[in-house]
Amino acid sequence: MRRPVITLTTDFGLSDHFAGTMKGVILGICPDAQIIDISHDVGAFGITEGAYLVAQAYRYFPRGTVHIVVVDPGVGTSRRPILVEAAGQRFVAPDNGVLSFVYAREEHKVRWITAEKYFLKTLSQTFHGRDIFSPAGAHLARGAAPAKMGKLISDYMRLHLDKPVRTARRGWTGAVLKVDRFGNLITNFPAEDFPDLGHRPFEMSVGLETVHRLARNYAECGPGELFVIVGSSGYLEVSSSQASAAKILGCGVGAPVELRIL
Amino acid sequence: MRRPVITLTTDFGLSDHFAGTMKGVILGICPDAQIIDISHDVGAFGITEGAYLVAQAYRYFPRGTVHIVVVDPGVGTSRRPILVEAAGQRFVAPDNGVLSFVYAREEHKVRWITAEKYFLKTLSQTFHGRDIFSPAGAHLARGAAPAKMGKLISDYMRLHLDKPVRTARRGWTGAVLKVDRFGNLITNFPAEDFPDLGHRPFEMSVGLETVHRLARNYAECGPGELFVIVGSSGYLEVSSSQASAAKILGCGVGAPVELRIL
Amino acid sequence: MRRPVITLTTDFGLSDHFAGTMKGVILGICPDAQIIDISHDVGAFGITEGAYLVAQAYRYFPRGTVHIVVVDPGVGTSRRPILVEAAGQRFVAPDNGVLSFVYAREEHKVRWITAEKYFLKTLSQTFHGRDIFSPAGAHLARGAAPAKMGKLISDYMRLHLDKPVRTARRGWTGAVLKVDRFGNLITNFPAEDFPDLGHRPFEMSVGLETVHRLARNYAECGPGELFVIVGSSGYLEVSSSQASAAKILGCGVGAPVELRIL
Repeated sequence: MRRPVITLTTDFGLSDHFAGTMKGVILGICPDAQIIDISHDVGAFGITEGAYLVAQAYRYFPRGTVHIVVVDPGVGTSRRPILVEAAGQRFVAPDNGVLSFVYAREEHKVRWITAEKYFLKTLSQTFHGRDIFSPAGAHLARGAAPAKMGKLISDYMRLHLDKPVRTARRGWTGAVLKVDRFGNLITNFPAEDFPDLGHRPFEMSVGLETVHRLARNYAECGPGELFVIVGSSGYLEVSSSQASAAKILGCGVGAPVELRIL
Repeated sequence: MRRPVITLTTDFGLSDHFAGTMKGVILGICPDAQIIDISHDVGAFGITEGAYLVAQAYRYFPRGTVHIVVVDPGVGTSRRPILVEAAGQRFVAPDNGVLSFVYAREEHKVRWITAEKYFLKTLSQTFHGRDIFSPAGAHLARGAAPAKMGKLISDYMRLHLDKPVRTARRGWTGAVLKVDRFGNLITNFPAEDFPDLGHRPFEMSVGLETVHRLARNYAECGPGELFVIVGSSGYLEVSSSQASAAKILGCGVGAPVELRIL
Repeated sequence: MRRPVITLTTDFGLSDHFAGTMKGVILGICPDAQIIDISHDVGAFGITEGAYLVAQAYRYFPRGTVHIVVVDPGVGTSRRPILVEAAGQRFVAPDNGVLSFVYAREEHKVRWITAEKYFLKTLSQTFHGRDIFSPAGAHLARGAAPAKMGKLISDYMRLHLDKPVRTARRGWTGAVLKVDRFGNLITNFPAEDFPDLGHRPFEMSVGLETVHRLARNYAECGPGELFVIVGSSGYLEVSSSQASAAKILGCGVGAPVELRIL
């Protein structure tokens, strides 16, 4: 039998015991779990960034995987813990929009997790990753039925992050979803929605600069030159060969991106 | 049969091969081990911080877990490698006080690990995490009897970190144990020892400021306001909503904390 | 049966989803894999550093381990993906010299991986760690025969990093391979090639300073004093007790190191 896979995406960082403690809780409930870190370095309170990271990773995991997502500025308030079934996988997270990409792409069912028997017995006000999300996720991975965890809801929070807005016949306004380690700016322009880009001149404006060039790989352009590339994310990314586009442009997550196809 | 769980807590960071190499050694001896990182980002030579992290995590791990702790400024000197049995778990560490919280909370037995057959054959002077602690921990996880590793000792090093000192009828002096990723200052004041705090006015002084307010969650106070909160650690923490209390107060690990209940 | 072990060494960092996504791909193909991170913090495009880290770690892993190494500035260009069999283990990497230490130390066979059935169906231009190296490595771990992946080649790229060059009867010029977390400068002088160092006076010049002392452990010298030590790497390292030698000397990876035995 396959060992159940559980992934973790949090803003807890790696210098504290938080991620390790979550894993202890999981192994106490589901000893066979194969636990995989997606990232613990989501910017503190970075719901957009967390949403993007989960969306990038989940499609590459086997059916049945349980994704635990804890980017949770509202911990200890009345925000609800939810369980989402989508794409043959399960997601456990606070109801703050961090699963919005999943909602946009997949048929999904959302439940409010209310069955306290799936939580730790003592709940802190500040670490629901340990007390609620990890045990609920581990019970799911071990075979608990989603329907036993709580009722379906339809008023869950949904952010519209996954596409730019059309602002002219050939003009769109979007945003930077993520700056990766190499300084590439990942926009929310899905490459497949802009097939013309390779064939027609265009202007993509980010920060103080406008980029005109589409490259096929990082080595194609000179060092420090800015270009647009179809990233591994499936989104258009603004990059620079062996340099950080984010530094050159002085931009970060949330920065507006304008595209005009000429 | 359950796979044995081994945790790692070190000050090796993640940019070197050290943690990965320890895991290679462990898997060579105990191929079924489920290896979990608590943290590798303990500040270099940070015995207090390492002691705190292990203490926070171990209680959430299954019985039988082996915790390997390598915060070891004295590597290569005559400081002893020790094995501690406590709380149904095992701890392998240098004898420098890094298990002091475990001693304070649990009945425990301490052994000096002397049986060299549980070490790697070639010992370096500088990487006992690989050569001594990982193989000893892996052999334990695989079933080696603690008594075969070395004799019981009673003169192990013990630091008194886990509680503040009473300095007046309603006054105590303690210290900051850890600054977490969000800038929360975790003090060594156990919340359960101060049940009055919610009912009586108080002053907690840290750095240049005095904090008067006890909050139940991070969202309750205005941005940048300082408050005391019962952290998930079980200790009183000094926090600030969506801001770093450590930055506001200019404080770090070891900073003194004064509490006066009025 | 032993679970297959797969290690990862990349320059992807841990704040992105890259390492997690690679693991999802691996578990989809080889569900039993025990996946171990060597490091994801290789400096961006740091072929020397990546080569060093893999070389340090592999010897401590069990026979049959598959090491996936993705330090790949040429991703998307015509640089070849290769499979190396050496020391009873397997290595999957781009052909850019990142396995040079393995070539220097071990008998080895190198294949150009061309069988596309071992890749993901859709290949991106920018993330071959996910699309090529992880699936190829996972298929190997699951039992695929190396010979089915591609033909043997002899024109693979090989860098000469593993030893200093002799420049006088008792003089050598080498380089810094790595700066570890503690600021120790790891040189490419194999300690075993310089057995005289403990018995004769010497001068090792790095950055602006010359070091004259060989120490046996970090605690032997005064704080801030520079010394040479036989590191756990097997190489001579320039260190300073409880301080960063790299900061004192203002040096990093690639800095020249001169040794003169007097």
